[in-house]
Amino acid sequence: MTEAMTPPSGPLSGVTVIDLTRVLAGPYCTMTLSDLGARVIKVERPGLGDDARHIGPFVNGMSAYFASLNRGKESIALDLRADDDRETFEQLLATADVVVENYRGGTFDRLGYDWDTLHARYPKLIYAAVSGFGHTGPYAERPAYDMVVQAMGGVMSITGQEDGDPTRVGTSIGDIVGGLFTAVGIVSALFHRTLTGETTKVDVSMLDCQVAILENAIARLMATGVTPGPLGAHHPSIAPFGAFRAGDGWLVVAAGNDRLFGRLCDVLGEPDLARDDRFATNPARTDHRSELQSALEAALAGATVEHWLARLGQADIPCGPINDVAQVLSDPQVRARNMVVSVDDGRLPGFSVAGNPIKLSAFPDPPTRGPVPDLPASET
Amino acid sequence: MTEAMTPPSGPLSGVTVIDLTRVLAGPYCTMTLSDLGARVIKVERPGLGDDARHIGPFVNGMSAYFASLNRGKESIALDLRADDDRETFEQLLATADVVVENYRGGTFDRLGYDWDTLHARYPKLIYAAVSGFGHTGPYAERPAYDMVVQAMGGVMSITGQEDGDPTRVGTSIGDIVGGLFTAVGIVSALFHRTLTGETTKVDVSMLDCQVAILENAIARLMATGVTPGPLGAHHPSIAPFGAFRAGDGWLVVAAGNDRLFGRLCDVLGEPDLARDDRFATNPARTDHRSELQSALEAALAGATVEHWLARLGQADIPCGPINDVAQVLSDPQVRARNMVVSVDDGRLPGFSVAGNPIKLSAFPDPPTRGPVPDLPASET
Repeated sequence: MTEAMTPPSGPLSGVTVIDLTRVLAGPYCTMTLSDLGARVIKVERPGLGDDARHIGPFVNGMSAYFASLNRGKESIALDLRADDDRETFEQLLATADVVVENYRGGTFDRLGYDWDTLHARYPKLIYAAVSGFGHTGPYAERPAYDMVVQAMGGVMSITGQEDGDPTRVGTSIGDIVGGLFTAVGIVSALFHRTLTGETTKVDVSMLDCQVAILENAIARLMATGVTPGPLGAHHPSIAPFGAFRAGDGWLVVAAGNDRLFGRLCDVLGEPDLARDDRFATNPARTDHRSELQSALEAALAGATVEHWLARLGQADIPCGPINDVAQVLSDPQVRARNMVVSVDDGRLPGFSVAGNPIKLSAFPDPPTRGPVPDLPASET
Repeated sequence: MTEAMTPPSGPLSGVTVIDLTRVLAGPYCTMTLSDLGARVIKVERPGLGDDARHIGPFVNGMSAYFASLNRGKESIALDLRADDDRETFEQLLATADVVVENYRGGTFDRLGYDWDTLHARYPKLIYAAVSGFGHTGPYAERPAYDMVVQAMGGVMSITGQEDGDPTRVGTSIGDIVGGLFTAVGIVSALFHRTLTGETTKVDVSMLDCQVAILENAIARLMATGVTPGPLGAHHPSIAPFGAFRAGDGWLVVAAGNDRLFGRLCDVLGEPDLARDDRFATNPARTDHRSELQSALEAALAGATVEHWLARLGQADIPCGPINDVAQVLSDPQVRARNMVVSVDDGRLPGFSVAGNPIKLSAFPDPPTRGPVPDLPASET
């Protein structure tokens, strides 16, 4: 096993998580638990390890992607089909609070670690599984990746330009939201165990999680019978609420009610717009979204993004630039919130990762994370 | 107050949440807690209530949007600037486990409910705030909506077509991910309180949460210095992993490694592609993504989406249709997983909402949710 590390002090301090997960949904979940103080021990295949170790780009031979998800975790290499390694693994389970895996449905069962067996042998252990489709239902044993659940779960059908080509959410929201719901499930199960002694299996499907985030798209379909489609950078039922072109680029403006819209028209020097019947109420503005866009952009064309953001900000109208990733990482608010943290690993000089967005008054929010575990030699 | 309801049995049974939140980030958080068994009491402004009550479309005069987020919660109308109502509110706080608000930073403090005051008066109370920018840093008191943090947080810069217009993620991922991280923070704080008696403030910024989900985009920037851009429906470092055109429409294929790619070429009747130098390894395929897309689409053009999904499924290659929201809700797996639940409210016949994606073996997963609370008359 890699050397034991001291996880950050947090609400999950003292919790030990045995982590069989690979690539993203599971590692994202256990990273979240690690940032809250849990000790996370990755169990990796001897020789190859987590697939993410082989996804580029690389820094000094180390996958930047793997590093960003697994900083601060420990690792042990075990072959769960070899008797000696199974024994080591079971010793880990006996002292752990949680075991997490993101195999395809059925795989962990076939290794002999189905919930009934685990629960009988380790009555204090919580078992969490995050898989493409969950452990029940007709697709339970199908393979999936983020791309598949983004497509099957409906978010792609409402993302992109009207009549445009299919558009993926640029971050792996299928994996990440699956990982977050799994974290909510695990911590809830820990809370329940502390109160009652009872443990549970947590079974999360990435596809289910996509359904859970469809939000107003389901409500609109239910209420109107009309299947929602993509709307570019606009909101389906609020206007103006989207991206608009100024003299030298784009900005976003979110004037969610009549008062804000009135103030927006004043700042743009077009107070008559707020009295125009087509734009007098939010439903009217939503019905005339493209005319509204043209009218606003005609006014915005006269000055730069920077100019308008300053003026709109003074008037307390929600607005912002469309930042690229480099701009995000140097944003003063993002910096002030300690959302860019360094990794305490000599092989990764100057390498930063996202911080913990859960800020807790009772705990420090450290500006560094522990090193990235090497894949250890096999135990046997 | 609306009539008390019995929340579903779950790991958070017995937990009481006082919920001052409006519209989406906060209500999404407390809906998640409610689905896990917590009792959630909304505190709404007399007369108007939660802004989401006024967002269309409407069913029998009720906002479908509000209904989808607040089913199963209770409600009380209180004016937190009126002495009598403050007294009622403070009686609620005295018996609650958690108070959650999603005001703009500074607002709750100015009402006299800053953390120091709350913590001194209600030492068992956990206080969670989810705001656009968090309670610290230079933007702490700025207004924000989902649209603003999607733009400022970088996800829009990597979503959309290359050289295309700005594209919003079609669901309000700025609010939803903020709500999920807040839920993780609250449940972690409950766990910690149970072990130690200590409580904490949970301060979540929607902008921070967008940084936390940028995932490989940060790692790529760190490793290469190149700022990532949008890639349509493709993955930046895996190929083929995206949307492809077949004879009668689009499907997604995610062949994440050489073995899967070889099998894909066999199914398409193009085994030579796997031996082509441009496509022999994942890095080579990523470098030649557009040639690869053309070659695959030339083969896919010969048959329908349905044909290819059946053939690819037989070969165990991760793939799927791009479902619209109606197709998602009727998908057999989504149905089998109880992800479409009805609302037990006579005013909403046949109305369904998303279910709970956290499936727990120790608890039932009910197929209905409690009614939608009316806005009660003011208490005073």
